[in-house]
Amino acid sequence: MALINENYLKLQAGYLFPEIGRRVSEFIEANPDKKVIKMGIGDVTQPLVPSVIKAFHEGVDEMAKGETFKGYGPEQGYAFLREAIAKNSYQDNGIDISADEIFISDGSKCDTGNIQEIFGAENKIAICDPVYPVYADTTVMAGKTGVCKENGYYDGIIYMPCTKENHFIPELPSEKPDLIFLCYPNNPTGTVATKEELKKWVDYAAENKAIILYDAAYEAFITEDGIPRSIYEIEGAKKVAIEFRSFSKTAGFTGTRCAYTIIPEELVASDKEGKEYPVKPLWNRRQSTKFNGVSYPVQKAAASIYTEEGKKEVAEVIAYYLENARIMKGNLSDIGYEVFGGKNAPYIWVKTKNEMSSWDFFDKVLNEANVVGTPGSGFGPAGEGYFRFSAFADRENVVEAMERIKNLS
Amino acid sequence: MALINENYLKLQAGYLFPEIGRRVSEFIEANPDKKVIKMGIGDVTQPLVPSVIKAFHEGVDEMAKGETFKGYGPEQGYAFLREAIAKNSYQDNGIDISADEIFISDGSKCDTGNIQEIFGAENKIAICDPVYPVYADTTVMAGKTGVCKENGYYDGIIYMPCTKENHFIPELPSEKPDLIFLCYPNNPTGTVATKEELKKWVDYAAENKAIILYDAAYEAFITEDGIPRSIYEIEGAKKVAIEFRSFSKTAGFTGTRCAYTIIPEELVASDKEGKEYPVKPLWNRRQSTKFNGVSYPVQKAAASIYTEEGKKEVAEVIAYYLENARIMKGNLSDIGYEVFGGKNAPYIWVKTKNEMSSWDFFDKVLNEANVVGTPGSGFGPAGEGYFRFSAFADRENVVEAMERIKNLS
Repeated sequence: MALINENYLKLQAGYLFPEIGRRVSEFIEANPDKKVIKMGIGDVTQPLVPSVIKAFHEGVDEMAKGETFKGYGPEQGYAFLREAIAKNSYQDNGIDISADEIFISDGSKCDTGNIQEIFGAENKIAICDPVYPVYADTTVMAGKTGVCKENGYYDGIIYMPCTKENHFIPELPSEKPDLIFLCYPNNPTGTVATKEELKKWVDYAAENKAIILYDAAYEAFITEDGIPRSIYEIEGAKKVAIEFRSFSKTAGFTGTRCAYTIIPEELVASDKEGKEYPVKPLWNRRQSTKFNGVSYPVQKAAASIYTEEGKKEVAEVIAYYLENARIMKGNLSDIGYEVFGGKNAPYIWVKTKNEMSSWDFFDKVLNEANVVGTPGSGFGPAGEGYFRFSAFADRENVVEAMERIKNLS
Repeated sequence: MALINENYLKLQAGYLFPEIGRRVSEFIEANPDKKVIKMGIGDVTQPLVPSVIKAFHEGVDEMAKGETFKGYGPEQGYAFLREAIAKNSYQDNGIDISADEIFISDGSKCDTGNIQEIFGAENKIAICDPVYPVYADTTVMAGKTGVCKENGYYDGIIYMPCTKENHFIPELPSEKPDLIFLCYPNNPTGTVATKEELKKWVDYAAENKAIILYDAAYEAFITEDGIPRSIYEIEGAKKVAIEFRSFSKTAGFTGTRCAYTIIPEELVASDKEGKEYPVKPLWNRRQSTKFNGVSYPVQKAAASIYTEEGKKEVAEVIAYYLENARIMKGNLSDIGYEVFGGKNAPYIWVKTKNEMSSWDFFDKVLNEANVVGTPGSGFGPAGEGYFRFSAFADRENVVEAMERIKNLS
């Protein structure tokens, strides 16, 4: 008799974005004449830049001719892309990461979800609260948790609350985790971690033989000097951290699909007897067995962002979104909101006024300003009383949305 | 302390294709003047057809303009592609599969590997021998097996030998499986299953509440009337089977990446108390959580094979490979080999002469004819004494390879 994976039954049915979708649809149906501005989902709006389009077309043309046609590519990704990443994103910034330590994939969602497969079921996972839901959901699916409690926490996961009181950087947990998910620049709070703060985590991981799963999907939005773009800027991090990066937000690839994961040669994990094994070959085996590489024209398109022209074009798009963020942050501060993030990140994290709940604020902003954002409580209990605006929007919509919110009662 | 998934340690290190690669490299190094013809790996050689190239370019162009740019797509795939598949691959052939039951992915390797995640660890898996290695390897990784025994079988997997004596269709196993992997047209044996044979399996699954995981990656190569292209041609199959299909071999997408999986609405599996759950929502949850959809231009390219022009072009490429197979089959038969497959499949499965071992035959063909094939024993113990030739090759190479093999001592 075929049995289901009963861990799936523990997953909470109500997922944030479908609920937002439902409320928005209901509003639009009741108010067909209102123009709703969506700043809820973190999805890019600007088209792919010219260099990417050109390289993408070239890749397609190569597939049209026998002499240049590409069949199965390497599961780890083509060397031309891995080498471009190693040089431009790491070595040129003084970080010693080689092409061999880079695995190309079709998305950081996939990678952050799949990475737990190479670790044992006994590992204790620590995640921030609020947090991108994939880390917890995939932990539940893998059977590493108990049921979901009334407060929204799954039994067996170590939650680390992030609020304005701790500047959205979690305290070191009292219970010892084995795998620690960190994400900076942070989704949803838009905050960044300094070198000192990351060093605290790297040292903690080293001391406890834990591994940090570092989601750096938004690193391209870091503008301030001194804020680390990679966890490998921290001494010792190569021994304790896996880093996830993506072309999604960096180059508008959310619908094009390309990302990468760094597993340094020196990263090890243990068997139950304490014998250490390098982690990289495990991920290599996982990817070679359950994945078949990223579409060749997509890899070719991705590599083009490292050309002179490509770098410039991509930087302009990032600057466009960051200017959106600046406008939002300025306007919301002006009318008395406490506003976080939005400086080195495409997300604005707003504290509601008068302890208004996240969903009440959602409804107010939707009904009165016809603007859609994301209720902070949807990312976890510690997000209650907060609200996320995404800077991934067209400028005129950003300006109009801010005008409307300013005029709210 | 971060612990590894110790199940990975059970995986056999020696994997078939790297070993082939090693021997071929060694030969080429020692014989730089010899022209080696490769018919080992099952990878396509013909370029993407004009309709696919055209649609692919159009998809890229849409990504260049704000009005037509696509960000995150639906994780299940765009409706335009799912509807084209439902109509052309199923409904037009009288099979009642709807677009809602189709999940687009980036490869059947991923899907056949990931599918076990939604089923419990207690399920007993049955696989054929010889077999595509991914089914067993992912079962091991998921912790559903013991160690690998001396005969190459993992403890805990039900193996079903397929030899010429049973026409490469396994007997119903005596030990009851919960999940049964079947693949027709078969890789590596190139054989097909008749309706009667598949009906036997569907009835068996229904009787035992087992689920058939039906890999139909090579269905496009079926030319004979009456051979089922889909397991859903068999009455009752929608209640017991998941079907995997791919654009890889159908339309030369091995480097472009697009595939799909069918999970019928009526397919159920149970929890340990025997309560039944539909399987489709579980896969939907898995894909929504751990996958982010296939690149938009790739989906657009894939959909083009269902246009009038696209159908014709793709059929020509398939005919080209099948003609290769016919030439190989004819030549090898002429010189006294027992040859299977190659009629409704791109693979030729050859019995070696005089009980020569698969690897001895590999070395003989490589050293004396400078042709690379695949040793049957690499696919499992029951493949010992057999050899696979792939019809995915250029015609002139096929003809030359056959000439050389004919002249072997």
